[in-house]
Amino acid sequence: MKVSLNQKILSRNDQCALNNRDYFAKNGTLCLNVISSPGSGKTTLLARTIQDMQGRLTIAVVEGDIRTDHDAQRIRQTGAEAVQIETEGACHLSAGQVGTALRQMKAKEKDVIFIENVGNLVCPSAFDLGEAGRVVLLSIPEGDDKPAKYPGTFAGAEIILINKIDLMDYIEFRLERVLADIHAVNPDATVLQVSATTGQGLEAWYDWLIDRRKAAAQRS
Amino acid sequence: MKVSLNQKILSRNDQCALNNRDYFAKNGTLCLNVISSPGSGKTTLLARTIQDMQGRLTIAVVEGDIRTDHDAQRIRQTGAEAVQIETEGACHLSAGQVGTALRQMKAKEKDVIFIENVGNLVCPSAFDLGEAGRVVLLSIPEGDDKPAKYPGTFAGAEIILINKIDLMDYIEFRLERVLADIHAVNPDATVLQVSATTGQGLEAWYDWLIDRRKAAAQRS
Repeated sequence: MKVSLNQKILSRNDQCALNNRDYFAKNGTLCLNVISSPGSGKTTLLARTIQDMQGRLTIAVVEGDIRTDHDAQRIRQTGAEAVQIETEGACHLSAGQVGTALRQMKAKEKDVIFIENVGNLVCPSAFDLGEAGRVVLLSIPEGDDKPAKYPGTFAGAEIILINKIDLMDYIEFRLERVLADIHAVNPDATVLQVSATTGQGLEAWYDWLIDRRKAAAQRS
Repeated sequence: MKVSLNQKILSRNDQCALNNRDYFAKNGTLCLNVISSPGSGKTTLLARTIQDMQGRLTIAVVEGDIRTDHDAQRIRQTGAEAVQIETEGACHLSAGQVGTALRQMKAKEKDVIFIENVGNLVCPSAFDLGEAGRVVLLSIPEGDDKPAKYPGTFAGAEIILINKIDLMDYIEFRLERVLADIHAVNPDATVLQVSATTGQGLEAWYDWLIDRRKAAAQRS
């Protein structure tokens, strides 16, 4: 009984995810689901990416937070479109919420739509939002044990950004251990070392993003 | 139908929490549920607290992680007893899991039992484990917007430790904003600024802990 109810809930999310995925494919829009702990630097990365890609990629953001619309405001300050979803306690975004947000923006005109999920390294990875791929951030201050402790989230990522690399001098962090633990659960993931604050390493991220968007547009 | 099922699940957790709470009260043990994002410094704080309190408080730890027993191993290196619960994907500990862990340790002989919850700033706050109070950690690199974005977790804390205060020189963090946002949702919380790595500010935490344990013992 409990299982069948869970399946029903899951399939409703998966149906909405399918609709979102169709919509993105039809328009040649690359949709990326951005997942990390609270405070890993998701919003800083997205705001800087929008600014640095101006004239090259048209980007919008669906923002998920339990409370406040601070992050959508930060994105709008770059001139980009952003829709905030306040989950009011829920620990992850659902595909239905994302679908509603898409109808509130000029989604068809965008090259890339980022979904910034609720800051949570666990639950968001269990819910398909209709994205083409997942971007997982791990920031240096969080510690080098996280890929081993949260293998499911790292296994589901297409690209993993090791962020706040500028703090390496002040914090003990065994990069080799992180790279080995990621490789054990996800040998195909692209792994980049970046600092969204200083800009270090972002060129490789932008190259990846442009290539990935080109592939999405060609498939549509 | 969905609501009644949820209630049934909740009441099973609450029944186990009641059992745990009775058990702690009977033995005069102070049980604290430690909640934070991944990488805020929970294990570092607990390992240091155990060492610094040696001869003054007998402490044990119930460790919750999705995968690995690294944290329990770190605690055992201090000489203290630790039981690891691997939740295998679940985003929080349940009261039943804690009850099982208590039966695997000499819980009656302890002055303080810490439950280090799964690193997650959302879900653990919805589950009573039978603790006397909650310790919430917020670390400087996570950013000063977290109490506003995760009000439920901060509202439920008896004490809030602003950790990694030694990184203040390298990271933009508006402490005034954090203190105001915490006060708005939880005016009664004790708020301390600490560094579990350098030891800064820990004396106030130890004083609080000793007083709080004394109160728990007197009530038993």
